[in-house]
Amino acid sequence: MAETFNISIVGAGRVGWHLAQALSAVGHTIQEIWSRRQSQAHLLAAKLPNARVVHSLDFSESPSQVFLLTVTDAALADIGHRLRLPKDAVVAHSSGSQALNMLNTIAAGGTGVFYPLQTFSKEKEVNMAEVPFFIEGSNPATTLILEALALSLSNKVHRASGEQRRQLHLAAVFASNFSNHMLRIAHDLLQESRLPTDLLHPLIEETLQKAIKIGPAPAQTGPAVRGDIPILEQHQKQLLAHPEWMQLYKLISDDILEKSKINKQ
Amino acid sequence: MAETFNISIVGAGRVGWHLAQALSAVGHTIQEIWSRRQSQAHLLAAKLPNARVVHSLDFSESPSQVFLLTVTDAALADIGHRLRLPKDAVVAHSSGSQALNMLNTIAAGGTGVFYPLQTFSKEKEVNMAEVPFFIEGSNPATTLILEALALSLSNKVHRASGEQRRQLHLAAVFASNFSNHMLRIAHDLLQESRLPTDLLHPLIEETLQKAIKIGPAPAQTGPAVRGDIPILEQHQKQLLAHPEWMQLYKLISDDILEKSKINKQ
Repeated sequence: MAETFNISIVGAGRVGWHLAQALSAVGHTIQEIWSRRQSQAHLLAAKLPNARVVHSLDFSESPSQVFLLTVTDAALADIGHRLRLPKDAVVAHSSGSQALNMLNTIAAGGTGVFYPLQTFSKEKEVNMAEVPFFIEGSNPATTLILEALALSLSNKVHRASGEQRRQLHLAAVFASNFSNHMLRIAHDLLQESRLPTDLLHPLIEETLQKAIKIGPAPAQTGPAVRGDIPILEQHQKQLLAHPEWMQLYKLISDDILEKSKINKQ
Repeated sequence: MAETFNISIVGAGRVGWHLAQALSAVGHTIQEIWSRRQSQAHLLAAKLPNARVVHSLDFSESPSQVFLLTVTDAALADIGHRLRLPKDAVVAHSSGSQALNMLNTIAAGGTGVFYPLQTFSKEKEVNMAEVPFFIEGSNPATTLILEALALSLSNKVHRASGEQRRQLHLAAVFASNFSNHMLRIAHDLLQESRLPTDLLHPLIEETLQKAIKIGPAPAQTGPAVRGDIPILEQHQKQLLAHPEWMQLYKLISDDILEKSKINKQ
């Protein structure tokens, strides 16, 4: 690889957890870990060769050139405000929805965004080489440093404006969080009926493979896209004990039916 | 394989299309294909060694022992009523939501249900060996015949009552049709912003793998499960041009937040 960096990670949640280990694995040095939950910082530092846990956000004596803020969006403004950085350091956040300029005043070297479009959980490894990264920088040098960092992990590295990133994040919520919630409702319905939830696994795998292969609009099947009103009504009756799911069932089915009409026009 | 059957397929839609070819591939003989859309029947018959297209629902002279009704739920009652079958034939429908007894009067040999829990589209092959089949029969001999037929395709063969099947079908709508619709909304949002939709593929694949590996409830990530109200509000503003998606966004996020509270109690 071309260049390696000294990096500090601020936030040992899901994103920091995976990024720190992936960056270390490709040759960068994670110097410091800060987390609001110190136990998480220690667990992460134990997985990295040189990292130490720090308790203060005053990094003015830090050896790091790059600071990655992987805290939640809700904590970002406060932590950004408390952060003290060495001269010429670059600082970037990893949020899909936060603007670049929210970090404006805190780093002389430059501020940026380092957004991986992926869902991370500590219980599951992620193949970082497949993860698309979206980069933005307050000046060309910062953009190049963050781009080099992303390219050391993945070959799917893109520059994106704040507006594009916000749209990607919104789309990701539907594609990941909301599709996962549909799986969760299915799972809960089977558990209530004492049916094994793994019966759904081949269906779930085929659904996602098909959506990727032929696109989700032509891949759609089921009672809503067929306009099978008696089944739609029967299913809503089956959901009488779950009024929130009944309402979701109706709204999503209406939208499937509506969009399929548009397709057929 | 143990026993092969002469089979007629009534309905050349997505389910009939895949079942007929899979049954033929494992050694059964598809004798006849009937479809409301004759062009579909001809396309399917062309893929099968001995099948002929028939134009009448009078099968009283048919050589088949098993008749699979793979028409839509909406058409099933009418077609069941018009069907004439040979003495001792077994007839089964493939619907998740229709009762066994809707075919009660039409076959002396027995009536049944032969329900594959999968999403089928003509544009995509399906690995039938992985598909769970749910069997019900009006008498033991019918159940055994349909079970043998399912076992010749898949080793995931279960007996299920009509009530269990209805619950499986409802869960399948959430796990497949509704999760697919979430992917479709994500897809449409990126297209509107002129962003390439394949950027989402690694996220979609990881979401599915994680839901299967650790379960969808612990796998959940994103602003709703974090209770990140400012992002939830920002996303709803981004959906101003799509009031139906804004409403879905709000309802699904509320449900994710609510269920995660229950988990943490």
